[in-house]
Parts: sequence; structure tokens; C-alpha cells
Amino acid sequence: MVITPHNDDTIAAIATPIGTGGLAIIRISGSKTLEIVDKIFKSKHDTDELKSWHIYLGNLFDKKDIIDEVTVSFYRSPRSYTTEDIVEIGCHGGIFVARRILDVILENGARLAEPGEFTKRAFINGRIDLSQAEAVADLIHSKTEISRNISLKHMEGQLYEKIERIRNELIDILSLLEIELDFSEEDIEFVERENFIIKLNHTIEEIEHLINSYSTGKIIKEGINLIIIGKRNVGKSSLLNALLREDRAIVTEIPGTTRDVLEEQLDIKGILFNVIDTAGIAETDDPVEKEGIKRTHGKIERANIVIHVLDFSNTLTKEDQSIISKVESLSNQKGLKIISVINKIDLDKKIEIEKISYFENNIPIVRTSAKTFAGIDDLEDMLYQKAFEGENKYNTSDVIITKKRHVEALKKCSGSLKRALKTSQTGLSSEFISVDLREALDSLGEIIGIVTNEDILKNIFEKFCIGK
Amino acid sequence: MVITPHNDDTIAAIATPIGTGGLAIIRISGSKTLEIVDKIFKSKHDTDELKSWHIYLGNLFDKKDIIDEVTVSFYRSPRSYTTEDIVEIGCHGGIFVARRILDVILENGARLAEPGEFTKRAFINGRIDLSQAEAVADLIHSKTEISRNISLKHMEGQLYEKIERIRNELIDILSLLEIELDFSEEDIEFVERENFIIKLNHTIEEIEHLINSYSTGKIIKEGINLIIIGKRNVGKSSLLNALLREDRAIVTEIPGTTRDVLEEQLDIKGILFNVIDTAGIAETDDPVEKEGIKRTHGKIERANIVIHVLDFSNTLTKEDQSIISKVESLSNQKGLKIISVINKIDLDKKIEIEKISYFENNIPIVRTSAKTFAGIDDLEDMLYQKAFEGENKYNTSDVIITKKRHVEALKKCSGSLKRALKTSQTGLSSEFISVDLREALDSLGEIIGIVTNEDILKNIFEKFCIGK
Repeated sequence: MVITPHNDDTIAAIATPIGTGGLAIIRISGSKTLEIVDKIFKSKHDTDELKSWHIYLGNLFDKKDIIDEVTVSFYRSPRSYTTEDIVEIGCHGGIFVARRILDVILENGARLAEPGEFTKRAFINGRIDLSQAEAVADLIHSKTEISRNISLKHMEGQLYEKIERIRNELIDILSLLEIELDFSEEDIEFVERENFIIKLNHTIEEIEHLINSYSTGKIIKEGINLIIIGKRNVGKSSLLNALLREDRAIVTEIPGTTRDVLEEQLDIKGILFNVIDTAGIAETDDPVEKEGIKRTHGKIERANIVIHVLDFSNTLTKEDQSIISKVESLSNQKGLKIISVINKIDLDKKIEIEKISYFENNIPIVRTSAKTFAGIDDLEDMLYQKAFEGENKYNTSDVIITKKRHVEALKKCSGSLKRALKTSQTGLSSEFISVDLREALDSLGEIIGIVTNEDILKNIFEKFCIGK
Repeated sequence: MVITPHNDDTIAAIATPIGTGGLAIIRISGSKTLEIVDKIFKSKHDTDELKSWHIYLGNLFDKKDIIDEVTVSFYRSPRSYTTEDIVEIGCHGGIFVARRILDVILENGARLAEPGEFTKRAFINGRIDLSQAEAVADLIHSKTEISRNISLKHMEGQLYEKIERIRNELIDILSLLEIELDFSEEDIEFVERENFIIKLNHTIEEIEHLINSYSTGKIIKEGINLIIIGKRNVGKSSLLNALLREDRAIVTEIPGTTRDVLEEQLDIKGILFNVIDTAGIAETDDPVEKEGIKRTHGKIERANIVIHVLDFSNTLTKEDQSIISKVESLSNQKGLKIISVINKIDLDKKIEIEKISYFENNIPIVRTSAKTFAGIDDLEDMLYQKAFEGENKYNTSDVIITKKRHVEALKKCSGSLKRALKTSQTGLSSEFISVDLREALDSLGEIIGIVTNEDILKNIFEKFCIGK
């Protein structure tokens, strides 16, 4: 570790979002916390009487002026988020008051915290490992139930424990190697070498299992890109609205943001679906009909799932057929996932079902009415099923890798282990194997922060919000 | 009071702003608070062991699922914001987690709080008066130091105490009237009547003083509308930027909001200046030069202060002169406040100062260079001075009325008192005077919430944010 374990300076930041609200919290952490509080906060109690995990009501001062009536919550080192002395000042919400109080704190000896610096201190001071620190940011940014749940589990140390267990297994394997080295002249070598290979294979399997979980983890973390296509007037826009109805629409973070410039996001059974090209969906009366498929083409490349909408109440056109063959060829060539929707089933049937080649090609067809909501639940079931098609099913007790950084470290680890296995089979000296195993251990150590450097940390914590 | 003093239901809301942040706080208030917490929160302590003004770390559950690791701060009735049992749950920030926890709380027996309902309960339960409740919202929405300070003072009860003192004086005066009634056959009447009139006059004076403070209070609360005009290329835009430099620009609430669609706001010595028509300022290369003044005309009507910018490095044009006479006539007719700025003093002088009639008309002229910042401080001093010109100077210890509702009640009160005075001088029966005095008392009672009704309360609290 290249990190200095101690922080002499005291940091402060507004920990709640910026905006109008009833409450704002300003957080201070570091050895000078109480010294600063003593200068700016007056209550019935002296600062040296403040008890840990207690709340005090009083006035916050800038010299002689009262700035606000506030609460002070005190967490004495080491039983705090950062393991340092922490005070959280609860003041009236809004922008001006909280900034004013932060200014007073900074004038009295604290420095403005960098994004994620409180959590970074929790890591550096050894309260949590690096995977737990990363999970804090993921939890804050989670948008669906499943991503919240996985982030929480990682924050609780689920990934840390798994990695630690594998590291201990590797250390066991390394010790087998030591025995081999010690008794290299004797019979014992062969027995231990066999044992060594069995254990190593088992560990590689475990690592590969984690690596494989990443495709599921990526879906959970980043969501599924969904595109709704079809010729005009088949009800693409109404279908999207039917999917967006009620609680499934994810509210964007900034109130008042214009909806139509954003991708719509759906939460279906805890999975995030990013609906791309909603502009295209709205163009139901586009005069240049034949242009439709061309323009959408580029966007289909970005999609994981394509919904192709057909109209139950009209005969198939050349354009419908052209979209069908386009989409089918993309499905064959690039493994694009397709759901065919026959919409407007509340109207009289005119579509010639037998002419749709989707049936022959095992592409699922869902019948819906965006108007009456018939079939919308089926479509959602199908979307959830397609999302995980070809992936491992998500199981709440599984350890799921959700970060590129983690999967890359695991791949390096797996590579080192496979080299060790190969070396051991060629009968080369155990010392060569030992080098590979130590590299594998280092790769695992990167995930939980045993092996790390300032660049990695900077990269991780700069994505945090300020105040956490 | 038409209000029911008890609230059987328990309310909950997210008290921090919606957005991404390190922390979010969900607040619960009411008799069922602990019962709800008992169902959803597990820590080392049983719920009945929770101590008031203590913080507890634990897990928040939705049935068997852990939703987040949270802190629970407990405030036992009556020592709480609402005087009811309050719990504040501190969870990881972001949108999803806080909403999820709020949902769990609502499913377990609380109801979503209306905007301002916590503060409304603090008022209804008698912990604060109505003027203090209103000041809480003002404090949250304050944008400058002076408005924060006045809101805080009202929140601390400064206005309440003033109104209460005047009410007590009125009650004294009423008692003088009673004495008069009791001894109406005797000599005592005359002496008391004189005393009565002196006291009444004094009270009227106090009320009028408060009413007069409203023009200052309005400036402090709503700010000053400022417009910068002048022909093109005189440096209007640079001058605005010079005023906006550094800490004076007020940051708007929603990050990422496009600046140019908003009015710019300046904080000059604690006074808010709303710069109107910033679009006009940017149009420095408008080809239709002569159109300039016409288009700005309508906007000048909305302004409290006009800055007219002239160019030090050029001779005066017909257009300059036309703006000067326009603005001067508005100043004479409508009392518009004008500051003349001669900009670009870093360049060589060409302007014919003697031709500017502003000098003769006592309109202040400030010389600036937006480029070198010369004179910008003088301009700010002048803006502050002009803001309060013709108004009472703001004095930190004064009680300042900032709300229309309050000034209207005070005017009604003053009217009643003046009627009482007149009646007493005409020698009519004291009973008539008594009716007027009681009306005056009621008007004062409206301000602090002794006399009120659901409509007034609805009107006041619906302007609050949720969670306060």
C-alpha cells in the first residue's frame, strides 16, 4: 500500500443534496472536529461534555452572529463512519444557510472534503475494504431494487468475504508448494503435487464463476438498452406509455428536467431498461415513411433488446416485412434479442399471422393492447426473461460482480492461476509456480484494496458525490 | 381557533432535498412513531430502550429484507420539533434508497406528510407561533445574508414578542376603558380618557412604524429589480460580468440549469438584485440599433433601478441623448431610480461630460472600467444606497415586516385603532370604542396565529417544502 494511513487535516462538506428541503446536514471529520465545534456552536453543554452518539440543540455562530438554530450529532473516534471524530450539523434546508455554515466551518480550521473523501478515510483507516467503499457509491446511485440489494450486500462485505476466502485458499495452496520445496528429494512431492492441482483447479473454477457473474452484474448495474421499432401508426408511443404507467417509470434526479430530451427508464421487476430513441417513437406521423428503418438502423446497434411492433388491425405491408428480415438477420449475426409485439388486439384482426416469419424463427410474439393494457404484463415478463437469456439467472444469495475493475482483476488472477497450473504440469521448479500464485494473490488484493495505489483510489473516489 | 389540537395520525416524509447526495433523512412524527420503528428497525437495542436525543446504528428492514444500514435519531415527546415523538432515519443518499425506506414506513402505518406539516404541528401543538412557523420557510428560501438574518430573528420569536407586547398594551388600554365604564358617573372619566388617548396614539405609532418597515422588508425578501441599458458596445455585458464576478453571483438551485434563460441574481451586501432583461444586455451587435430603446422600454417599467451605461471613450450620440431624456422623464414621472455609469475609463476620454444632463438632475454618475474592475466597488455602494433610498435604513436590531399577510393585518389593526381614537374624541359610549379595540386585537392575533382559520393555515403551509 502506497497510502499514508493518517490524515492530520479535518474535512467538511454538505452531505445532503443541494436544493430546497427541510433539512441539510454538514459533516465534519478529523482530529480538529471538536475544536472547531467549540468555536462555532453554543448549547447548554460545554463541548468537552458532548457524548458520543448523542444529539445536542443549540445555535451556530459566526463570531457573535447567530447563523441558525442547529442540531449537533457527535460520533467519537473510533466509533464513527471514518473512525475519526465526526460531527454532523443539522440545519435548516435550502442553499444559503447550509453554505453559510460550511463557510464558517472552513474559516475555523477545516478544509473542504473531496468527493468520497469521508468514505476514502473509512477505507484508509481500515474500517471497510475497497469493495465495500465502492459499494457505498453504487448504493447511492442505485435505481432499482436489485441493484440496491447487490450494492448493499457488497457494502456489508459479501464480496470482501468471498475474495478473502479465495485468497486464504491460495495461501493454503502456496503452503503446499512450500512443503513440496522442503521435501523435494522425497516421495511426498507426487502426492502433494496432485493435491495442489486439485485445489488449484477448484480455485480457478471459483474465479471463473465470479467472472461469469459479471454479464449478469452488468445488466443489473447498467440496465438493458431497449429500442421499440415499427412502421408508423402501429402504437409504439402508446406501448411505451403503457410500460411507463404507474410506478415503473423511474423519476429522474433533477426535478423539472425536460422529459423528452432524456432516455426514458423503466424499472421492470428490479431491472433497469433504458429506452433508446424515444424521439423516433414519437414520430408517428413522419411523412418520409420509407426512411424510418434506415434512420433507426444505427440505433439498433446500441440495443440489447429490440421490440418490433406490428398492427393487429391492419394487413402486413412491405415495410413490415422489410423490418422483419432486417431484424432477423441482426438476430442471427449479432445475437440481438428480439420481441415481436402484435399491438391493437382490441380492434378487429386484419394481420396475416401466417406471413410472419418470426414464428418459424422462434422469436417470441406477445399480443398486446396498449389501450386496454391487455398483454402488457406478458410483455414485461418477456422483457425480464429476455434480459437474462443466455446469462446466469440472478439469485439473491449469489455473489455478483458488477464492476469492470473487479472483473479485470479477476481475469488477471485467473490468467496467473492457469499459468501456475500449466507450469506445474510441465514439471518446472516450484519457484516458477510460486511467482504466478503470488501474482494471483496480488490481483485479488486489488479488489479489496490490499494492493492499491493513489491512481486507483483517485479513480474510484472522484466518482463519489461530495459529502460521502 | 378552529383547529383541532390533536393529530392521531403519524406522518412521514423525506426531509432532505431530492437528488444525489451522501445522506438522506426520512422524518417520522406522531404517536405511532416508535411502533413503526419497532417493526422496521433492528439494532443492538430494543425499541423500548431507545433514549431521547440519542442516535442508534442498525438495519432497516422491509419484512425480512435489509434495505439499508441506517442511523435512527430519536426525539421523545414533548422535546421535539413537533412536540410529538419524532424519529429521523439517516440512510444512504440518492433517490432510490430513501424512497424505498419511505415506502416501508408508509406501509407500516404512517401517512405521507403534506408540505410544511411538521412545522404546522409545531404551531398547532403550541411550541411556536404562526409568525415563527412562517419564518422557517423564509429561512429555507433565503438567498442572502440579510434575509437569512431577518428570517432567523422572526423564527426566534422577535416578531412574536413585539406583537405580544403591543397586544398587552392594547389589553391595558381596554382595561382603562373598563375603569371608565365602572366609574362613568364620576370625575375619573376625564383623567382616564386623556391617559387612554395618549396610550392609543402611542400604540398607533408603533403599528405604523411596523407597517412602514414593510417597504424595507419587501426589498430584503424579494430583492431589487435591476436593468442595465445603453446603446450597443458600451460594455453592458462586461459590466454585468464584473458585477457577477466571484462570490456575488447567486447559484441557482438546480445544477445544470442553463444560465442564459434565467435572470441573473446578484448578492450585493446582503441585498438581492434580480437583473432583468439579460438577453437585451447580450445583444451587443444588434443590427437594428434604433430599435434598442423601444424594446427595452417595457422592461424598464418592471425595474426598481436602472443603470444607464455610457462609453467614456466615445463621443455622445443622438441615441445616448435619447435614452437620457427617456430615463429622466421616467425618473420624474414614476420615481424610477437611476444610476448613470460611464464605462471604459481605462481608455482615452472622448465623451463630452458637460453635455450629460444627469449632472444637473442630481442623478449619480459612477465611472467604471469593467475591464480593470475600477469603480465596480463604487457602483456596488451606489446600488446598495439606491436600494434603500427613500426607505428606512435596515438596522439589524429592528423588527422588519417582510410578509404581505402581516402588513395587511397591521393595516386592519391600525384602521381599527384610528376608529377607536375618533370615536373616543366624539364622546360616543365606550362600548363602541371597545368593539374597535377588540377588532384591533384580533388583527394582531392573526399574525401570531391566535386568531386563524384553516384557509389561512392552508395558504401558509402549502408553500413549504415537504419534510419540514
